[in-house]
Amino acid sequence: MSFNTFGRVLRFTTFGESHGPAIGAVVDGCPPGLELSEGDIQPFLDKRRPGQSRFTTQRQEPDQVRILSGVFEGRTTGTPIGLLIDNVDQRSKDYSEVAAAYRPGHADYAYDAKYGFRDYRGGGRSSARETAMRVAAGAVARLVIPEVTITAWVEAIGGDAIDYAKFDAGEIGNNPFFCPDPDAAVRWEALVDDARKAGSSLGAVIACEAAGVPPGWGAPLYAKLDSELASAMMSINAVKGVEIGDGFAAAALSGEANADAMRPGANGPEFLANHAGGIAGGISTGQPVRVRIAFKPTSSILTPVATITRTGEASEIRTKGRHDPCVGIRGVPVVEAMMALVLADQKLLHRAQCG
Amino acid sequence: MSFNTFGRVLRFTTFGESHGPAIGAVVDGCPPGLELSEGDIQPFLDKRRPGQSRFTTQRQEPDQVRILSGVFEGRTTGTPIGLLIDNVDQRSKDYSEVAAAYRPGHADYAYDAKYGFRDYRGGGRSSARETAMRVAAGAVARLVIPEVTITAWVEAIGGDAIDYAKFDAGEIGNNPFFCPDPDAAVRWEALVDDARKAGSSLGAVIACEAAGVPPGWGAPLYAKLDSELASAMMSINAVKGVEIGDGFAAAALSGEANADAMRPGANGPEFLANHAGGIAGGISTGQPVRVRIAFKPTSSILTPVATITRTGEASEIRTKGRHDPCVGIRGVPVVEAMMALVLADQKLLHRAQCG
Amino acid sequence: MSFNTFGRVLRFTTFGESHGPAIGAVVDGCPPGLELSEGDIQPFLDKRRPGQSRFTTQRQEPDQVRILSGVFEGRTTGTPIGLLIDNVDQRSKDYSEVAAAYRPGHADYAYDAKYGFRDYRGGGRSSARETAMRVAAGAVARLVIPEVTITAWVEAIGGDAIDYAKFDAGEIGNNPFFCPDPDAAVRWEALVDDARKAGSSLGAVIACEAAGVPPGWGAPLYAKLDSELASAMMSINAVKGVEIGDGFAAAALSGEANADAMRPGANGPEFLANHAGGIAGGISTGQPVRVRIAFKPTSSILTPVATITRTGEASEIRTKGRHDPCVGIRGVPVVEAMMALVLADQKLLHRAQCG
Amino acid sequence: MSFNTFGRVLRFTTFGESHGPAIGAVVDGCPPGLELSEGDIQPFLDKRRPGQSRFTTQRQEPDQVRILSGVFEGRTTGTPIGLLIDNVDQRSKDYSEVAAAYRPGHADYAYDAKYGFRDYRGGGRSSARETAMRVAAGAVARLVIPEVTITAWVEAIGGDAIDYAKFDAGEIGNNPFFCPDPDAAVRWEALVDDARKAGSSLGAVIACEAAGVPPGWGAPLYAKLDSELASAMMSINAVKGVEIGDGFAAAALSGEANADAMRPGANGPEFLANHAGGIAGGISTGQPVRVRIAFKPTSSILTPVATITRTGEASEIRTKGRHDPCVGIRGVPVVEAMMALVLADQKLLHRAQCG
Repeated sequence: MSFNTFGRVLRFTTFGESHGPAIGAVVDGCPPGLELSEGDIQPFLDKRRPGQSRFTTQRQEPDQVRILSGVFEGRTTGTPIGLLIDNVDQRSKDYSEVAAAYRPGHADYAYDAKYGFRDYRGGGRSSARETAMRVAAGAVARLVIPEVTITAWVEAIGGDAIDYAKFDAGEIGNNPFFCPDPDAAVRWEALVDDARKAGSSLGAVIACEAAGVPPGWGAPLYAKLDSELASAMMSINAVKGVEIGDGFAAAALSGEANADAMRPGANGPEFLANHAGGIAGGISTGQPVRVRIAFKPTSSILTPVATITRTGEASEIRTKGRHDPCVGIRGVPVVEAMMALVLADQKLLHRAQCG
Repeated sequence: MSFNTFGRVLRFTTFGESHGPAIGAVVDGCPPGLELSEGDIQPFLDKRRPGQSRFTTQRQEPDQVRILSGVFEGRTTGTPIGLLIDNVDQRSKDYSEVAAAYRPGHADYAYDAKYGFRDYRGGGRSSARETAMRVAAGAVARLVIPEVTITAWVEAIGGDAIDYAKFDAGEIGNNPFFCPDPDAAVRWEALVDDARKAGSSLGAVIACEAAGVPPGWGAPLYAKLDSELASAMMSINAVKGVEIGDGFAAAALSGEANADAMRPGANGPEFLANHAGGIAGGISTGQPVRVRIAFKPTSSILTPVATITRTGEASEIRTKGRHDPCVGIRGVPVVEAMMALVLADQKLLHRAQCG
Repeated sequence: MSFNTFGRVLRFTTFGESHGPAIGAVVDGCPPGLELSEGDIQPFLDKRRPGQSRFTTQRQEPDQVRILSGVFEGRTTGTPIGLLIDNVDQRSKDYSEVAAAYRPGHADYAYDAKYGFRDYRGGGRSSARETAMRVAAGAVARLVIPEVTITAWVEAIGGDAIDYAKFDAGEIGNNPFFCPDPDAAVRWEALVDDARKAGSSLGAVIACEAAGVPPGWGAPLYAKLDSELASAMMSINAVKGVEIGDGFAAAALSGEANADAMRPGANGPEFLANHAGGIAGGISTGQPVRVRIAFKPTSSILTPVATITRTGEASEIRTKGRHDPCVGIRGVPVVEAMMALVLADQKLLHRAQCG
Repeated sequence: MSFNTFGRVLRFTTFGESHGPAIGAVVDGCPPGLELSEGDIQPFLDKRRPGQSRFTTQRQEPDQVRILSGVFEGRTTGTPIGLLIDNVDQRSKDYSEVAAAYRPGHADYAYDAKYGFRDYRGGGRSSARETAMRVAAGAVARLVIPEVTITAWVEAIGGDAIDYAKFDAGEIGNNPFFCPDPDAAVRWEALVDDARKAGSSLGAVIACEAAGVPPGWGAPLYAKLDSELASAMMSINAVKGVEIGDGFAAAALSGEANADAMRPGANGPEFLANHAGGIAGGISTGQPVRVRIAFKPTSSILTPVATITRTGEASEIRTKGRHDPCVGIRGVPVVEAMMALVLADQKLLHRAQCG
């Protein structure tokens, strides 16, 4: 089946292909009375928008969102919020070769194996273009959780990581890489430029932190906060790994080294560490919620790769056209959006059960 | 809310606390006509059962499962399968201290913050004891996917990893660590013994592979196969990270190095690599599905850790009693069960949409 | 598929067959801190219990419920509540004929057509015995909505209706028919006795009212309060019709005659009529919620009916054994339970979205 | 909460208000490879379209649907199908009075009680305009069940019923009332004209039959075919009652009179009656599935009705503007659409579990 809805009580459903007339989303279950206009959504879309630097795809999409329903006199009414973005810059001519042969690393072969055929134009439904609607839905979700501040950044590109000693959240918006370490940003400029010029691509690691999450959000056992976040993040195109808190590093620690000791604080407990990433037993502890996400390198590369055609013959394919040399970079606003959507959903779920 | 159900069309629901009278599960949506008896489930429970070596908790639970419904004359009827395991070896006296103070790393504080109070006996609902029901449900799921072979093993304990050059699947059952590398198994014996004697604990990494998954399983976009697996694995107690295929390592690769090239094979395409872990665009490719999972060290340790009491005073807590020095070890059958449950669900979903 | 779960955030799942070892339910999403013991559930089960008068089946089931989880020190913990009732009085020998031929009006043929075979003992999963678990779950749901008073009664048996001029809620518990009109109760005694002695059966109409539902519960558009009630009631064995408020009678009214005019009242609006049955636009209005439910006559009758065998030959079948001459009578506590379950779920949903 | 999604695996989500810029739907889970264009949907929308005779509202909406996604080269791809209809003929000036006072029988008060405020223009989200999207989604669902023929008709208006002896399915399309009895159609012309001229309104009963449903569709226990149909029909604006087969009439029958006897037929069993409406135990029997639905009279009438204002004062309201004198008439294509959507969903569910 196809399950294009995410969430339990604050749910969003997306539709649309890379080269269809439009992409859209329906956000359902939003509390009434929240001030909402296109102006609340557009800045997040602009942050994700392609074509803003030479380090992302040169496709030019204004990504102007329209609210079609669910808002009256500037406030949410509690009814479903329809969101629509017209596709403007589709160049279908670029994609003729893709119709005939499978691009390794892409969804091409898997979609054909599942559905029998596919909309091959720009990746069709499997295009990262869909994430624009997540960003739009996420902007709505943020209104549901004003107590929470969400910040994501790129932690590493192509294996070159930032130095957390130089971490400056204020720097994240000052470079095209969402990089909080100004020195790393300089290095990445060369790194990504080289990859781009070579027709190659690079992977990336994104980190995301949500501050201000009160203790008690999360829905054990099978909608645990960490489980929902893992699902949300792993559903983003090109993501291959998710960690909560220390993640895989925790597997190498002793119980003593991994313990987040507590002491009395001004407002509830004060934690002396946050190895757990703000989640215990699937429920938020009041510490910042921390997630790390691994993005594989963009599968579209100019180097020819061995493949097969739709009819099963051996072939080679080079993926020409406009691509992100490092798809992880534009993942930052998407990761933030998914964090907002999960937290908003869990806030409402917590309110349902625990009043 | 509390969401104790997992799955889309093949769903299971669990209930029960560590020290209540019983734990149980309901498996709903199972196809009719499959041969099923307690004998099909018990071996998997035995594999997970505590108290089998000195490297796991000494709690003695026979974990005898009873099928209460959904089976008639030895075959599944298509109606819900009720499964029940009586709790036998509850020693509630061990847990008095836990009622008063929060064990760092455990769900204690988070549950209290969410629900106002908690069943503190043996971790209550947040105990890993619940995973017995996942294993039981997973045994049913395996019957739904006879074409698939699932194998999990421990890849590292406390940061000491196996050597894949020595990998021998036949060794996994020959040691108490589900270790495929006999040399590592010897090392781990000392490692875990030391931790156990010191009242300390160790983290672990588990790897799991499902062979025989045909191409086409997976439900984009928000029930992608990788997304569902991430959710399933992250819902297991103590798990802090999930990778599909190369996972975080892929983030350091170039597009060329990460490409899973294809060539014509005897039965459909033959892949020259499996960086993707058998999943592209959220859909299986026909390659083995590969997942890695990070388990944090058991939070129950003998070393005193600073904490607070229920009433907010500073305190210290040592977790006495019977614990797994490395909870990841017993995670192996649980990981396999979750893999089976996700794949069986996706198989049925695929059949629903694509016939 | 088989979907044995009902509800959105307060959900219950049932399992069990008429002649299996036990039947059970899991109630998930219950708010924490509610006082709950077997004593809160048992009275409702006793009300539904068979064998209490000659007007219901003579099967003797004590229907003693056990709470297996989700309650600690007498209060709900917020974790799933496992409920179990052992089957005691199964006489499998009564059902040999049913294995071979299909009883018209029963689920026999449909189950075989769907699943290929069935547990034919006592109707297996399609037995009204399952409704015991709804009643048990409903008893939990009532604790979630203490502001609501739910009353159901039998309005007609075999086409003989009560006289609402003689309606006395206090009479409902004074006769074996849940009849609020003492004169009708006398008539029904003869009516049902005649049917019972003749090996025949009778249909019934049940009415149910929930007083105290505040305005605002309901989840448009596809989980409207009336839509959920219709689904809940139609899921009960033998139910063939559901009405909200005036129901089919409203279809014969003019707009003027059907208008529920309002005027200012002490606590919000005062309604001058309740044609709508307390629901407008799928949302409660604060008036009593009113539902009517049609039960067909028990399909098990002694008169031989033409049928076919499993292998397709012509045959005749008389349904011997212990049966309710009017299955609608014991529907009263089941209808009340479903009302409670729907309202409790909607209360929590309302709280989730609207705070 | 707001739950604007219907279905289990073939799901549709709608959004949009009566006087917003557009209404839309997302149909998710549709099998791939089905031929689909706007031309497959438009005829059903045309059937429901307002302003086609003097017996329906004079609002002029072309209701031109656009497919925004999920179709490629004329066939469904298996990805979500986005559907959009622009609102053209909104006259917001008509609705000023409604902003201030509650129209009895409408959702006005209930929406305010739930959400705190509402989009009062043309009923906002609670307008029957939303049903256009159900009709559009239903047209897609029909493609999933080509073996099924769905026919609905008006059986009674204002209490004046057709004579089934004169039933002629070919007549249904020959009059503006979807009336299969030509004599009744003549009578209804006068009846509805009178109501329209008097500013009054009338209720209606719709009957719907689905022929060709094979035995075995349905998902016990809580997604039974009858339960799902009841939910689907009761979710339609103005519906107050639903019957399967004989419905309430069955409650007055004896078991003998209600039995649907069987005998061997050319293709499986042949039934000698269909009191059950084609469903037993929640599963289709292979007989035609029969549903009856009661529509209350349109709540919008010219006669002044006592009400209260938003601020709680006594008032009177006459509902001027463009209204259907009998909203049940245009319910016919909506009922057919919901029937198609439920059956298509159940077909896919059946395939998932039973192959």
